[in-house]
Parts: sequence; structure tokens; C-alpha cells
Amino acid sequence: MKEFELIENIFKSASMASIEGRQDLILGIGDDCAQVQVPHGQHLVFSMDTLVEGRHFPFDADPAAIGYRAVASCVSDLAAMGAKPAFFTLGLTLPDSDPQWLSAFAEGMAELAEPIGLVLVGGDTTKGPLTISLQVHGYIEPEFVVSRAGAKAGDDIYVTGVLGDAAAAVPIVTGEMMVKGDLYEHFYEAYWRPESRLIAAMALKRVVSSMLDLSDGLVQDIQHILKASGVGAHIDSSLIPMSEMLKQWQPDAALQLALTGGDDYELCFSAPVSAREEVSLITQTLHLPCTKIGQITESGFTVEGYDGQFEGWQHF
Amino acid sequence: MKEFELIENIFKSASMASIEGRQDLILGIGDDCAQVQVPHGQHLVFSMDTLVEGRHFPFDADPAAIGYRAVASCVSDLAAMGAKPAFFTLGLTLPDSDPQWLSAFAEGMAELAEPIGLVLVGGDTTKGPLTISLQVHGYIEPEFVVSRAGAKAGDDIYVTGVLGDAAAAVPIVTGEMMVKGDLYEHFYEAYWRPESRLIAAMALKRVVSSMLDLSDGLVQDIQHILKASGVGAHIDSSLIPMSEMLKQWQPDAALQLALTGGDDYELCFSAPVSAREEVSLITQTLHLPCTKIGQITESGFTVEGYDGQFEGWQHF
Repeated sequence: MKEFELIENIFKSASMASIEGRQDLILGIGDDCAQVQVPHGQHLVFSMDTLVEGRHFPFDADPAAIGYRAVASCVSDLAAMGAKPAFFTLGLTLPDSDPQWLSAFAEGMAELAEPIGLVLVGGDTTKGPLTISLQVHGYIEPEFVVSRAGAKAGDDIYVTGVLGDAAAAVPIVTGEMMVKGDLYEHFYEAYWRPESRLIAAMALKRVVSSMLDLSDGLVQDIQHILKASGVGAHIDSSLIPMSEMLKQWQPDAALQLALTGGDDYELCFSAPVSAREEVSLITQTLHLPCTKIGQITESGFTVEGYDGQFEGWQHF
Repeated sequence: MKEFELIENIFKSASMASIEGRQDLILGIGDDCAQVQVPHGQHLVFSMDTLVEGRHFPFDADPAAIGYRAVASCVSDLAAMGAKPAFFTLGLTLPDSDPQWLSAFAEGMAELAEPIGLVLVGGDTTKGPLTISLQVHGYIEPEFVVSRAGAKAGDDIYVTGVLGDAAAAVPIVTGEMMVKGDLYEHFYEAYWRPESRLIAAMALKRVVSSMLDLSDGLVQDIQHILKASGVGAHIDSSLIPMSEMLKQWQPDAALQLALTGGDDYELCFSAPVSAREEVSLITQTLHLPCTKIGQITESGFTVEGYDGQFEGWQHF
């Protein structure tokens, strides 16, 4: 199949219908450029993630799962800014053009993207080792942008959900480790279908002082907040939220996985003590699992009750 | 070197200085998302290109040349829309983190990007086979968007520059063919440093009826205009502009290379007969080489004086 037919058949049809009725999306796939009118008074935010087979996901994985997770990991960056998802582009490098693979991959992307109004508007498809570059774009009111730079000494530190499951799942999804039943399902889902924190983030953005999403592990990612805000942090490892499955299956490794394992795509945020009631109200209303794990300090970084390595996911 | 340091040291420093003083660029590299305020009344246009080593450029090529050409090929899509360059993102997959390679690559990108106001604002760097996904973004007044869909029967068809040199250069830049002196320099430049047609495009956008950039070869690319506009075309092969170097060096292959070879990144556009004087005035004022090569017709596609294969660059 020729490149143009391939793109047109699979991606254009997937994107065309979604663009209709969207006043912000003027031109989608099929011209030299896509064209967008950012809604009046709003800013554009965007993030690009590159995923390489054998590095960010296992070889020969289910293409629908790859598509879903590729969008999820990118959308998580929009969530961290408190942005509303708008559209995305896809740079796809493929060893061959397998229409079945592509259809499943596109369906996996659409399963997450469509309900949140994230429309595919452009990209490029080329031949080579399987590599996926996704750029997701969202809109935000400039007065409610959440950055990493607003944390103040004394603020509480929170994380959503549970940590460590996705990292624990890696040997399972690569097939290195064989587990069955509930255990398999729990960790398969944790790795391939991370919970979207978009709505939570949109609600939280008015009360947090800083926020980011956890992709490389808590102790590594939180450094970005500390550096950008010029503060320190104290974390109590006994407060780190972990699933019962993880604690039972990997009692010795659980804490290390939760502190340093990547791919959870949960939110980590700071909020002033005065906002505790509001944070609690939001998380209760949304049934959002959310745990206070420590405090922002003047300087330094300590994790009470943990003496392991502070080593997060490193790409090199 | 750790991923974060690598990104911060090389790309952040390259981008920070450029963002300063730009009112549209609110947040650059270093947060979950970059943040942009599209100028009032303007639309955002963007295009993503993915380049794979060994496929879109030779193995072990000069990193500065790769960087320059990666930006050039993308900027060519902005030109085709008549857009003003604004910012870009980079998804870079690298086999290893070689600071010297990265510096040279970043300098190559900056050499073209900086003077045209195109600022690096985000991206992702990962380990894997050398793959470059660039997304360039520009601004455009919605009333002057140039699409592929406006060509009308009777319109003239033009191309800028000369065609075929970049395709002829491939065996030279891959080292398959050894040539010396002027010949080497001419084709090396044609391949690695395609002429930017940005300014030409911004001047032409008010008079053209359709426009695109030639990346996959004239006879293949022009089909996009014909399909989008619902028209045909007649091209006179004796009018196709070719360099003296190409005609002398490859007298038998020159025309085929010019018609079907990719990577020239010249503009191909249609304009009504009534605009001939204006086109001529613009091209003379800008000293822009520009040649009328045929007409838009009701239907069909013919290339007079050429009976070779109509085969453009296919990625699969």
C-alpha cells in the first residue's frame, strides 16, 4: 500500500468525522499544514512524547493497547497543566504497512481520544523501526495555568491514585514473568490503561500551587517542582499510596517501585495548608483517590522511612 | 549523561534566549507542556515531519546538516500555506547521547530557525534508532490561507527554483557515487540546504489559487492539488526548470529526476491567467526563479514530451 493511501484510508477517515462541528479545527489531515483557531481568550498548551518499541513498550504488543497508552501518556501532560484536550498529531514510524495493525492502533487511540474531544489533525507516517511521536494540544485560560514553579514551603504534597503498579507490571507485560487471573489483569490494566486524571486536574487547578504528572517516578519527577519552585520537600514513605495487589505480590519491592518506578501517570501536586478543605471536597466529589504524602520545605529532599536508591527511569 | 540534563543543557539553553521578548511564547521547554498565545486574529498552522536515518537521510551524516535540513523540510510546509514561522517541537530518538553530535545538530537547526523567528519550545528525547520528528508551527491571517483546493481549469501552473537536483544528489550524499569540486558542492548543497521559499510564499499567497511544496516529486505532489481541487493538469516537460549542472551531468536522467525525484522543497502553485503580471512582478522583485510549466485543465493528467514512469517517492 502506498503511503498516501495508507494515511488517507486509516487516519483521515478517523479524523474527518471528528473535525466536523468543531469550530476551532479549520483544516485537518490532507493539506501541507493543519489549521486551528484557538478559542478567543485561551492559550494553546502542548506536549510531545516519543515512544520506542522495546524501550517504552514491549515488542509485539497489542497495537490497540499501544495506541491507547500512547494517547494516555500524552494526555497526562495536558492534565498536569489543567488544560482541556483539543487535538493531536502523530508521527508514526513503522517497519511495514500492515492495515490490520494500523486499524487496531488507530482504534486504541480513538478509544481514549474521542470521548475527551481530542481529534487527530495531522502527522507523518514513515518506514523504519516502530517509533511513535505524539503531540497533544489543549486549551487553557491563562489565569488558571498550573506550572511547576508555584510550590511554597509549608504546602502539602499530594498524589492521586496508587503508585508503583505500572512499574511492577513491566515484567508481566514483557512476558518475562508469568502470572494469572486477577493479578495479571490488575497489572496489565495498570500498565496499558492508566487512569486519566484530566477531570481531576481541571477541578484541582484552582487550588494547587504546583502540579505535574508522574511519568518517570515520584522521587525523580518531584525534583522538577522543587527546582522550578526553589524549595525542598519532605516525604513520609509510610503515606505513599500503593495497591493491595502490589503490597501482597511484591511486599519487599513495593515501596521502591512506588517511589522510583515510572509510567503511573498520576498527578503529584502541592497546595497550601489553607486549601486542605477544598482539596478534600474536590477529591470526595470526584471519588478521586488522593493522598497527602508530605510537605514542601525550604530546601533539601528527604524521604522518611526509605533508605533505598533514589533512581528513577533514565532514558540513557 | 542523564536524559534531563541532556535536554536541559543543549536544547533549553538554545531555546531560552529565543523565547525572551516573544510575547506569543509564554512557556518553553521545562514544564509538562509548552504554552503559546496565538496572536489575536491569527490562526495556528502546523506540520509534522518524521525523518529516519538510512531512509530520509544517509547513515553517519553530518549532524549539523541533518538539523538544518530537518527544519528546512518542515518549514517548506509552512511556506506552502503562506504562514509566518513561529515555533517548533522536536521528538528526537537517538542511539546514544553524544553531546558533540547533539550540539552540532542543534546548531544546524538554529542556523535556519533563528533568523526566521522559529523557536524550539518543547519536545522529547529518547533512546533508540535515530529518528527525528519535527513539528513546526506558524501563524496566518485566516483570510489569506493558501490551500490545495483552489485550482481552477485554465489556471497557470508554476514551480519555483529548479527541480531534480536533490534527487540526483542522493548517490553523492550517501557516498555511492564519488564526484569532485563544483559538482560535489552543487549537489551537496541542493540536498542538504534546500532554498527556503518562505518569503516568496508570503508574497505569492495573495495571488495563487493553490499551492504546495514539492517533497515527493512534482508528478506525485501535484496530484494532491488536482484531487483537492477536482481538476486536471497539462504539463509541458520542455518547460521544467533544471540546473545546468544536472542537465550536463545526467543528460538522460535529468527530466525523470526533475519530474519524479523528491526533496526539492520548491513551491508548486496555480494562479489565474489574470494574475500573470502580478506573479511576474513578485518573482522579479524577489529575484525568485519561477517558471510556468503548464495549465490546470478540467480533468486528466498529461505530461507532454515525457513517456517515463510516473513514480514518485514511496515510503512503503
